[in-house]
Amino acid sequence: MKKLINDPVDFVAESVMGFAAANEEIVRASLDPMYLVRTDAPIAGKVALLSGGGSGHEPLHAGFVGLGMLDVAVPGAVFTSPPPDPILAATRAVDSGAGVLYIVKNYTGDVMNFEVAAELAAMDGHDVVCVIVNDDVAVEDSTFTAGRRGVAGTILVEKLAGAAAERGAALDAVAAIARRAITNLRTMGVAIEAPVVPHVGRPSFDLRDDEMEIGIGIHGEPGRYRAVAASANDVADRLLEAVLADLGVRSGERVLLLVNGMGGTPESELHIVYGRARSRLESRGIEVARSLVGSFVTSLEMRGCSITLLRMDDEFVELWDAPVHTARLRWRA
Amino acid sequence: MKKLINDPVDFVAESVMGFAAANEEIVRASLDPMYLVRTDAPIAGKVALLSGGGSGHEPLHAGFVGLGMLDVAVPGAVFTSPPPDPILAATRAVDSGAGVLYIVKNYTGDVMNFEVAAELAAMDGHDVVCVIVNDDVAVEDSTFTAGRRGVAGTILVEKLAGAAAERGAALDAVAAIARRAITNLRTMGVAIEAPVVPHVGRPSFDLRDDEMEIGIGIHGEPGRYRAVAASANDVADRLLEAVLADLGVRSGERVLLLVNGMGGTPESELHIVYGRARSRLESRGIEVARSLVGSFVTSLEMRGCSITLLRMDDEFVELWDAPVHTARLRWRA
Repeated sequence: MKKLINDPVDFVAESVMGFAAANEEIVRASLDPMYLVRTDAPIAGKVALLSGGGSGHEPLHAGFVGLGMLDVAVPGAVFTSPPPDPILAATRAVDSGAGVLYIVKNYTGDVMNFEVAAELAAMDGHDVVCVIVNDDVAVEDSTFTAGRRGVAGTILVEKLAGAAAERGAALDAVAAIARRAITNLRTMGVAIEAPVVPHVGRPSFDLRDDEMEIGIGIHGEPGRYRAVAASANDVADRLLEAVLADLGVRSGERVLLLVNGMGGTPESELHIVYGRARSRLESRGIEVARSLVGSFVTSLEMRGCSITLLRMDDEFVELWDAPVHTARLRWRA
Repeated sequence: MKKLINDPVDFVAESVMGFAAANEEIVRASLDPMYLVRTDAPIAGKVALLSGGGSGHEPLHAGFVGLGMLDVAVPGAVFTSPPPDPILAATRAVDSGAGVLYIVKNYTGDVMNFEVAAELAAMDGHDVVCVIVNDDVAVEDSTFTAGRRGVAGTILVEKLAGAAAERGAALDAVAAIARRAITNLRTMGVAIEAPVVPHVGRPSFDLRDDEMEIGIGIHGEPGRYRAVAASANDVADRLLEAVLADLGVRSGERVLLLVNGMGGTPESELHIVYGRARSRLESRGIEVARSLVGSFVTSLEMRGCSITLLRMDDEFVELWDAPVHTARLRWRA
């Protein structure tokens, strides 16, 4: 195992502190309990957005803390949910009285810990609503999941709900936007090389030199099937067909197309996959209204990618285009 | 070799077309001759910035085309300079009459092709000034270079000169900013895993499971020495010491600290390296006035990173903070 790390025990804390120092104009880190919070939180009258989960998926979630997206991110150990305590502390750090939306990826540990935290927060007088992201169409139930896994589409939920909160929507309305995004969101991924968890020190799964895993999760969970490693076009087609079939997008509809790198994939390859997916969508009469390409929801240094479609309407386009200023995603209106 | 590509022959063109489609509000692609140009070019009265070089370093250069940075990027084949013809065509596409600055990384092929293009452009009536970036302190002369190589610091030159051009500076003044940036810029890198060039199909160099290459180039050129793979802190210290010794920064001075990923390195690791470098600089009384962490100048899927320091003054801070809107770097003032 070769990595640019020190003692695996310090991996998350050192990474979090480095991230916070490099982005000190946007976020501030608390180490114990651990969370990364907007420097201007709590923001009077604004619903706060909180997300979190196991580390190893950077820039998720800390890279999306800032204006127009999350108010606070709660990182756990690598591939391990944070416990309720830091989630509760993070809730206190951001709640201005307008309430807090928890955006939780659907893994058993995360759902349990965030729900416990939500109960504790309610006893503490906070209005909390929890939404569960489950965009991965690859498999029902998985190593760490009952139902479908939450993967790359999570950042789209964070962006749309974050924009709604920033423009002053109330907690129920922000939660409704998040739920409507989740309903219209599907993802599937592929791995061509496994990641190595620092304290484990060996690949999370074995792939032969000529193999790929179609439907991979973001913790190395098994996908739908193994296949002989194929061309980018073939991979793009397989992922896109699975997503399209599940989402049921029809000719004349609009989508946001996200091609997400898994951590070790160069951008050049992501753009090849994007180009293929886009031309296939257009040939079916589906308009790619918005696009995003890059490594946003990763699995350490895993090589591979995922394709996400979000069905768009006028309100979603407006929320997507609204200003955002985070470490990893930035634009103005 | 497993990659998300199709026929290696189509690698660059497919990647360029995917990139342009995903960023159609910022850039437009020409395929033959190949370049990526701002949708609003040529811009009346503004000096144009042109850069380019071999592909395989994405997001360099196309990811930095847009407001406040480059007007056009000219990609060559993988790790191979573009010939003069597309550079000349790109010059015509962006010159409003205010002249064009070529920003060239110091590799023999690039310097030759950009200088020939500059002569052809001059005969064509264009005012062209060429600056050569040579920030890599690792070695004098290398596989493809006479003198020092141009590496990650190139994007800092592009940003500062781009901001000067955007605020209306004349060609000589923009070139002077670029040259002053180059004078105050130093970089050194490390590799822990080699990249694979698509049409070659095997790693560009051999590293044992316990080895790293200190002073690596961005085409797999040899560095200063091989060493037993060490901790992130040890790597950060070695790179930083080499850069500091060469740049001669002293206590009380300000720097921009760039930690650049080589393509296959997860952000979590880059932030660990950043955190160490920053605390070492601060302990010497050197102020880290600005920071940038991410994969900007890569070598396909190579794993590793580089550390860059740019000595800052008030004018550089102002130019750095000026608005930029490209695919990969975005902020407002």
